[in-house]
Amino acid sequence: MKRARIVYKGAVHCVVEHEGKIKLPDGQIVSEHEVEWLPPVTPKTIFALGLNYADHATELDFKAPSEPLVFLKGMNTLLGHRGQTKRPSDATFMHYECELVVVIGKKARHVKKDEAYEYIEGYTIANDYAIRDYLENYYRPNLRVKNRDTCTPIGPWVVDAADIENPMNLTLRTYVNGQLTQEGSTKDMVFDIPFLIEYLSSFMTLNAGDIILTGTPKGAVDTKVGDEVITEIEGIGRLVNAIVSDVGGE
Amino acid sequence: MKRARIVYKGAVHCVVEHEGKIKLPDGQIVSEHEVEWLPPVTPKTIFALGLNYADHATELDFKAPSEPLVFLKGMNTLLGHRGQTKRPSDATFMHYECELVVVIGKKARHVKKDEAYEYIEGYTIANDYAIRDYLENYYRPNLRVKNRDTCTPIGPWVVDAADIENPMNLTLRTYVNGQLTQEGSTKDMVFDIPFLIEYLSSFMTLNAGDIILTGTPKGAVDTKVGDEVITEIEGIGRLVNAIVSDVGGE
Repeated sequence: MKRARIVYKGAVHCVVEHEGKIKLPDGQIVSEHEVEWLPPVTPKTIFALGLNYADHATELDFKAPSEPLVFLKGMNTLLGHRGQTKRPSDATFMHYECELVVVIGKKARHVKKDEAYEYIEGYTIANDYAIRDYLENYYRPNLRVKNRDTCTPIGPWVVDAADIENPMNLTLRTYVNGQLTQEGSTKDMVFDIPFLIEYLSSFMTLNAGDIILTGTPKGAVDTKVGDEVITEIEGIGRLVNAIVSDVGGE
Repeated sequence: MKRARIVYKGAVHCVVEHEGKIKLPDGQIVSEHEVEWLPPVTPKTIFALGLNYADHATELDFKAPSEPLVFLKGMNTLLGHRGQTKRPSDATFMHYECELVVVIGKKARHVKKDEAYEYIEGYTIANDYAIRDYLENYYRPNLRVKNRDTCTPIGPWVVDAADIENPMNLTLRTYVNGQLTQEGSTKDMVFDIPFLIEYLSSFMTLNAGDIILTGTPKGAVDTKVGDEVITEIEGIGRLVNAIVSDVGGE
C-alpha cells in the first residue's frame, strides 16, 4: 500500500495509490496531475543524518563518522512532490541529496536492533538540499545549510514497510534535467536503519510519525534556478522537484 | 494577560491567570496545585541559542560567538511546570539553564530589527538542561546534550508581550533546593531579541507559535536526582522542576 496527502479541489485528502493513479477516500480515481501534493507525513520531529555514506563524506573532504551524526530539521523545510524549491539568493553552491526516509510507526524507546523494523510504518523519499556555503560553522550543521524554507521536498508516497523486502538494498538515483548525476545503494550506509533506531531510542523517545532522513551517497553537484531534480529510490518512487528563484518571494 | 495550558479533571484547558490563581474558560477559579501543567506553547519548531551570554561561554571554556549559534530541539524535550525531569543515567554532569523564551505571534520573514517586537506574542521561561558529557562532538550540539526527553521544562505562563516593558532588562535567577545558584540579566545577551528575529527570518520563515530559547548566563552547576530546580525571570514567573531517576522508566 502507498499513501499520500494531497489537495484536490481545495480540500486536503489522505489518499492511496491505485494502479498508478490516486484513489480518494470516496473511491474516486484522479490522476497525479490533477492534485497538489503535500508532504506525505506530518512529523513532530524530523531527524537527518550527516555523512552516512562513506563515499559522500570523502567527496566533502570529511572522514566517515565513528558514530551517527544526527541533526534536527524544522517544519518550514518540507515541501511536497512536484513542488518548487526556492534557491536562496545567498547560496553559491546548493546540492541535492537523495535520501531514503524512515517513517516511525509507534513510540520507540530502548529498542534493540533486531526489533527495530517492528517500529517502522513505511518509507518515502526526501531530497535534503544543502547550501554548501555554510558547511564550516562552529555549530554543525548550521541552520543555513540545512534549514531553508522549501529545501526538503519529500514524497510522493509513503510505501508500507511490509511492501519493502529489504530497505538496506535499494538503489538511489538523482537526475538533473534528465541526466543521471547520483547513483548509490542503501547497502552502503555507514549506520544502517536498525542501528539508527537503536541508537536514537537509546537516549530519547521516537514518536509515531517522526521521520529519519538516512543520508545520501556520493554524487552531489550544484544545482541552478530552472533545474528539474528527480530523486528516485527503487521500490519507493520518484520525487520531482523544480528549483526557482528566491528573489521576489516572501 | 498570562496564558497557560493545563489538565484539570482529565481535560486539557487553555486558561488565564486571575489574581494568582487559574481561571478556566467557564470562569471557574482553581488553585495551581489542583492542575497538571502542560507546556504553555505547542510550537512547530523550537529554536535554542548556544553561548548567548558571554560569561556562560567563558565558564564552558568557549569564546563568545561572532554570530548566533542556533540549534533546533525536538518536541520530546518539553515538559510542563512542576513536572519531573528524568536525569539520564549516562550523565555525569547535568546543568540547568534558565532562559527567557520568545513566543512568535505571526509569520516572520525578512523582518528588520526595529520591527521585530511586532512579531512577538509573549514570553515564558525554559530550563534548558544540558548533559555536559557530550559537549565536544563533531556535530554540535549533539542530540545527547540537548535533546533528552523531559529535559526542557517550560512555563508556567506565557506573558503577553504588551505586559513586558523591556524584555532586554530582566533578571534571571535559578535556585537549587532553595539556594540561589545562578543570577544574570537579559541585558547581557550577546545577540538581543530583535537581532535574533532579524537573523533567523533573514534566511527562513518563523511561524506563529514557534519559540526561541535565548540562552543562559553564568552559573550552571551540576544537579542530582532529588533536586528541586526553580528558574525564575522577573515579570515572567517561576518555573518549578524536580529531577528524578531515569532508571526503571520507559
